[in-house]
Amino acid sequence: MEELHIRPAIAEDIPALVAMLADDVLGAARESLDDLAPYTAAFERLAGDPNQHLVVAVRDDQVVGTLQLTIIPGLSRQGATRSIIEGVRIHAKERGNGLGSQLISWAVEESRRLECRLVQLTTDMSRTDAQRFYKRLGFAATHMGFKLEL
Amino acid sequence: MEELHIRPAIAEDIPALVAMLADDVLGAARESLDDLAPYTAAFERLAGDPNQHLVVAVRDDQVVGTLQLTIIPGLSRQGATRSIIEGVRIHAKERGNGLGSQLISWAVEESRRLECRLVQLTTDMSRTDAQRFYKRLGFAATHMGFKLEL
Repeated sequence: MEELHIRPAIAEDIPALVAMLADDVLGAARESLDDLAPYTAAFERLAGDPNQHLVVAVRDDQVVGTLQLTIIPGLSRQGATRSIIEGVRIHAKERGNGLGSQLISWAVEESRRLECRLVQLTTDMSRTDAQRFYKRLGFAATHMGFKLEL
Repeated sequence: MEELHIRPAIAEDIPALVAMLADDVLGAARESLDDLAPYTAAFERLAGDPNQHLVVAVRDDQVVGTLQLTIIPGLSRQGATRSIIEGVRIHAKERGNGLGSQLISWAVEESRRLECRLVQLTTDMSRTDAQRFYKRLGFAATHMGFKLEL
């Protein structure tokens, strides 16, 4: 198996990214591979924002993982900057082999480099495997996550 | 009681904002009113980021509430933009009179105006009043919120 490489996503990665977003128990109902235009528009918005870091994990020239790291300055905790991890996806054939840990470790190290004092994420209550995974990586399940669809 | 006014925070609001952040069961241990320099630096970073909306609620020329709304583009959910509410604080003398609802309603409306399809927030597990409050406003407690301190 070739070594894993984590790099910023580029526009050419969009089809592979959308395929991974859709290949998920919750994502299947939410994504649409028929029309990539809304994904391309969102990608351009992400690419133009210096506080957004959309990355892909690549092995053997194939995109096998992704996550989005957002840097959020703020007043609380003595002006602490925090980061938020969203959209973590691992290709089906790579699950269970440590790629998830490598991606999250990348996000934690990048957050440290960018002087964040806190890394946050939420995971759907139904994703019990994910909850165990984040606890194992040292995250504390201290918060309740609320969502309102508009 | 004079009418409430919600507006973007300005640098002159920083002492009142920090006082509110510190006047909180969790915030008391985290904030420091002795040195405002780190708060001022964070404020400047927020002010320079078009995806950050730090607002204050003002009544009788006094800052009585605040929240931070962050706009986050993303690929998932067909390129949906989401918003995150952080740092909600209500002045002690205004608690229980509907100001919290007014601030959250402002954030929801602003998110709608900015074409977000989802509003998210997390609240500490110990804040059971806050959890009831967000449920009453229509938020669904669907997620577990994880944090890692760096």
